Amino acid sequence: MRIKLTIAYDGAPYKGWQYQPGMVTVQETIEEALSAVAKQRLSIYASGRTDTGVHANGQVAHFDAPEALTLPPERWAAALNTKLPPFIRIMASAQVAEDFHSRFSAVSKTYQYRVITREVMHPHYHGRAWHMPRGLDLAILQQVMEAYQGEHDFRHFSALRGNETEETSYVRHITEACYDQQEDGVVIRYSGNGFLYKMVRILTGVAVQAAQGRMELSQLHAMLSDVEGEYNTAKFCAPAGGLTLQEVRYPTE
Amino acid sequence: MRIKLTIAYDGAPYKGWQYQPGMVTVQETIEEALSAVAKQRLSIYASGRTDTGVHANGQVAHFDAPEALTLPPERWAAALNTKLPPFIRIMASAQVAEDFHSRFSAVSKTYQYRVITREVMHPHYHGRAWHMPRGLDLAILQQVMEAYQGEHDFRHFSALRGNETEETSYVRHITEACYDQQEDGVVIRYSGNGFLYKMVRILTGVAVQAAQGRMELSQLHAMLSDVEGEYNTAKFCAPAGGLTLQEVRYPTE
Repeated sequence: MRIKLTIAYDGAPYKGWQYQPGMVTVQETIEEALSAVAKQRLSIYASGRTDTGVHANGQVAHFDAPEALTLPPERWAAALNTKLPPFIRIMASAQVAEDFHSRFSAVSKTYQYRVITREVMHPHYHGRAWHMPRGLDLAILQQVMEAYQGEHDFRHFSALRGNETEETSYVRHITEACYDQQEDGVVIRYSGNGFLYKMVRILTGVAVQAAQGRMELSQLHAMLSDVEGEYNTAKFCAPAGGLTLQEVRYPTE
Repeated sequence: MRIKLTIAYDGAPYKGWQYQPGMVTVQETIEEALSAVAKQRLSIYASGRTDTGVHANGQVAHFDAPEALTLPPERWAAALNTKLPPFIRIMASAQVAEDFHSRFSAVSKTYQYRVITREVMHPHYHGRAWHMPRGLDLAILQQVMEAYQGEHDFRHFSALRGNETEETSYVRHITEACYDQQEDGVVIRYSGNGFLYKMVRILTGVAVQAAQGRMELSQLHAMLSDVEGEYNTAKFCAPAGGLTLQEVRYPTE
């Protein structure tokens, strides 16, 4: 029986989602809890990796529960939570079709990125926000958000993973890019059909550069359209702690 | 020159506010930063202690800056923050009258206490809330809040510190006791002219007992009026992590 897990985690204590030998990762920690409940080694598959320090409110993963286990699907959440550290919580568990795949069935994802602009950052946000104590021009930020929306080749807004070759396509469709002004900063929200490696952090870093008046909008437009150009965007990559994977959506929902 | 500091801290990494030999406390950590900036040992005095694990958004403390130091009063915040860990931030610094005392000049304090009632507590609240996944009867909670308001002898809502004798008076005036219903629980807010040791946590524990239908309101009224009675309230003391010292008020403000 295939089970879908909806997972929240504090990314700070972990070396990202994906299993790495000798590192404490979210995947490994959940697989250990799963194996303790199931009394056998089981593997889980996530909608995507998150980097070291990145948080999740609604990461999705699936696994196959052996038929011999009679635990009702919705009870896996509570059973796993008894074995997990408090930094990781299974918010819900449910049975899904046998052909459901947390990664390949996903139709869209939403991320949020928190920027604190007030002079002193409250300790509560340590590891959970980017402290950038300069004014942001919100009219420019709004223009950047509008520029990001739609289908673009985002090759200049991505990084290569160390052990991987190039992507087959850098074209992604951002359906929502907006910000919410808060008392001590802004929360930026991005939804789309997929995101390249480090794309949300680079989108955010570039947006902050522009909203601080350190980059012309024309340059940003060039980065979105001039696929042949050379742009050193890695230096704009915003820190991991501000990023949260909010939600992963599937066609049946 | 007397300087007033407004301080926010995450209580989780510290053994409370007050200096204790061999323990890492908030007071000691700030005094070390102060000594590093001032190049001499200086002591700070807070509006009151907070226990291990209790947080602050607006703790107030004062110290006397030697006349030889020419740092402008409002610059102490930034200077200290460069020496402090990110779990403690000086949100503001200002000159105050020489007879200002963070504890004795205070006229009121506000605390808040967070209770998460949803079945699974988000990792974000770990160490910052009391997870109490049962329904609370909000009509009863409201009645408890109303019962707490006003001047009462709160002896049954306090604990003795290990090394201290009895208080001279247990009478305190609660000017505000209310709750704010949130998506995943409630935040209870108390303001008053002073609070006894562990008083806010016991008030909260008793309120939750009543709102869960485990204590009659008549018993709660008795605890507030029957000063001769024997009540084992220590068992209701809510956990430290849910508590935050929000604000300390002074007559000149």
